[in-house]
Amino acid sequence: MLTVEEALERVLANSSAKMAARIPLCDALGLVLGEDVSADLDSPPYDKSMVDGYAVRSADLPGGSGELALLEEIMAGMTPSRPVEAETCSRIMTGAPIPRGADAVVMQEMTASAAGDPNRIRIRDERLRAGQNIVRQGVAMRRGEVVLRAGRIIRPAEIGLLAEVGRPEISAIPAARVAALSTGNELVSPADHPAAGQIRNSNGPMLVAAARQTGATAVDLGVARDERESLQAKLAEGLQNDVLVVSGGVSTGILDLAPATLAELGVREVFHKIRMKPGKPLWFGVKEHTAERRTLVFGLPGNPVSSFVCFELFVKPALAKLAGRDPKIVHDLITARLTSDFSHRGDRPTYHPAVVECLNQTAGPSVRPLRWAGSADLRGLADANALAIFPAGDFSYRAGEPVQALLLN
Amino acid sequence: MLTVEEALERVLANSSAKMAARIPLCDALGLVLGEDVSADLDSPPYDKSMVDGYAVRSADLPGGSGELALLEEIMAGMTPSRPVEAETCSRIMTGAPIPRGADAVVMQEMTASAAGDPNRIRIRDERLRAGQNIVRQGVAMRRGEVVLRAGRIIRPAEIGLLAEVGRPEISAIPAARVAALSTGNELVSPADHPAAGQIRNSNGPMLVAAARQTGATAVDLGVARDERESLQAKLAEGLQNDVLVVSGGVSTGILDLAPATLAELGVREVFHKIRMKPGKPLWFGVKEHTAERRTLVFGLPGNPVSSFVCFELFVKPALAKLAGRDPKIVHDLITARLTSDFSHRGDRPTYHPAVVECLNQTAGPSVRPLRWAGSADLRGLADANALAIFPAGDFSYRAGEPVQALLLN
Repeated sequence: MLTVEEALERVLANSSAKMAARIPLCDALGLVLGEDVSADLDSPPYDKSMVDGYAVRSADLPGGSGELALLEEIMAGMTPSRPVEAETCSRIMTGAPIPRGADAVVMQEMTASAAGDPNRIRIRDERLRAGQNIVRQGVAMRRGEVVLRAGRIIRPAEIGLLAEVGRPEISAIPAARVAALSTGNELVSPADHPAAGQIRNSNGPMLVAAARQTGATAVDLGVARDERESLQAKLAEGLQNDVLVVSGGVSTGILDLAPATLAELGVREVFHKIRMKPGKPLWFGVKEHTAERRTLVFGLPGNPVSSFVCFELFVKPALAKLAGRDPKIVHDLITARLTSDFSHRGDRPTYHPAVVECLNQTAGPSVRPLRWAGSADLRGLADANALAIFPAGDFSYRAGEPVQALLLN
Repeated sequence: MLTVEEALERVLANSSAKMAARIPLCDALGLVLGEDVSADLDSPPYDKSMVDGYAVRSADLPGGSGELALLEEIMAGMTPSRPVEAETCSRIMTGAPIPRGADAVVMQEMTASAAGDPNRIRIRDERLRAGQNIVRQGVAMRRGEVVLRAGRIIRPAEIGLLAEVGRPEISAIPAARVAALSTGNELVSPADHPAAGQIRNSNGPMLVAAARQTGATAVDLGVARDERESLQAKLAEGLQNDVLVVSGGVSTGILDLAPATLAELGVREVFHKIRMKPGKPLWFGVKEHTAERRTLVFGLPGNPVSSFVCFELFVKPALAKLAGRDPKIVHDLITARLTSDFSHRGDRPTYHPAVVECLNQTAGPSVRPLRWAGSADLRGLADANALAIFPAGDFSYRAGEPVQALLLN
């Protein structure tokens, strides 16, 4: 059986970034930029005022004081109509272009109209110096300069910058499309009351949410029964996506039809079963549609916590790679100290729902494994904010011992 | 002028969680639960098998070995039709109900058919013990027990749990609705080429993205000109939302009409101007529609980095509170060591775009203030992953000195 690390390596070896496409800027948040982007203009495009005040020639104001004749008012969006010459000034608003001749802007608060004459401005700014309150043309970026490189994750600041350089549409790696299919004759919808032997389908809604949380788009294909026809039709529909996540149907039971049915649909098995707990029955395969287009197929165990842990460990890094992100930084792994003694038994590394807390910076984080009734216990998982990782073997840990934990969000 | 802390306190004093509403489970990711949720069934709903294998009576298998008569096959979704009696067993699939009489399940891998008789099963499981591979009814949760409390943030695991307890719809606090309006005669659309004195509207797309990143829904109302009619119509439209974010128009310039026009629309000013850089002209007010419904109005400075910093410091915590989250944990503040000498001058605390890196756990995080051309320099902001915080005053910092930094995501 593969180790977790070996399995992840094979998943990533079969995953690659989607082709970049033209995306409207308003839909680009969280995507990865697919092109280098240059400034099409200097920024600022002209010398501009940082404040509301008066554009002056500093030489006219020895010691920062004097009285100047007002030429005009320059609003943002206007261009100055007159140069500032000796003993004159122009009123100027934040963001407006500096008139020719002026070499400083005095803030509004340091000025007053001369008594009786609104066209004469009295100025007193003891710290006045040439260049003050002026942002020079091109100081933030020069026309033609690359301001964002392909591979950059598009956050709000990048959106603003792309708008500034005139990109209402950009090249970006589109969100991965994920389909989630739950299999099993025992499953009924969350809206139904289970009869004897039945349980509600919690994996579908959970896996769709987990995919969306990564930025992917996701559809819930509902439940397929353990019958070849029902399963084949739903699987074929799922294979229209970048990633198909099937839960249930991958153990060794008589009705665990998923691997065989996937093979019939041209999905090549890459591995089946891994050395971990929960999640041992994990199945992974690939459908090559064309040289450029493939679907990654994850057969997750039917128990919801197993499904969740496999999604976290394997599907999430694959989705990061499809989105053009670094799959190596998907997981937030920390070392934390156990809050109490803990015994672990078993021949597989175990991912145990836990609560990580960081009460103060000097003590560092602590980890408290939760009471957990096994791979069907979603309640224990919901109370967790981390998975404590215990290596294979029978161990008794003491309170205070350090263990690894994977943070959940 | 208010300090950042005082201003934030006033913003939060005027913000409160939205009323909970019925939300389909598939739309609930990231929202805050508005009700306590109880299990409507035991989980598991019956004693069930954790593995594929054979349900046995452990007393029939001294030392874990023996040969038993096969009664039936119990698939998931079925109910057992026969009790397991002395010297018999039933094949059972993962998740299927344990038949009466059986007290253990032996894994498939430890069994074989007796030669020549598929109805006799040979078993060898040296570690066999009563109860093995059985999950007992109700061990994860008992019918009627509260499994999720109001106030819980709904993550994928919560979605799974809510599906399991039969909640296709829940009570949750809906996402806040945000409208972003940019004002200024100098603004043109990102799709246009600016003429002399014009710049592109970067704030609208950036602020919409910043709002969406918090989980809010957001609309871009585009640009309002600095004229009462245009401004009033757009502001009135914006006031239909939970939060209206207006950028520009809040300085002391002649055309900075926003505060006056908002007052005409019944928006009560809470404060104007704060002691920080960038972002000094920040304006904040509240429109009370009814006792239950209000709109928070933020007048952000027109310069995009000022707008961004004000959004981060004030709008984000308000949005967290509207969504029922704890506004105190919105900001990720760390202490980091400067990578090089740095001088800071000014009478306001400054939020300076910076890069925080954590190269190894022992050295802790470092912070590198970026070359930054001021509050219009979106490029400097886009290169940042943090804002380094420098207190008011003229200081020369040495490389290695600790400073505070607010992490951006």
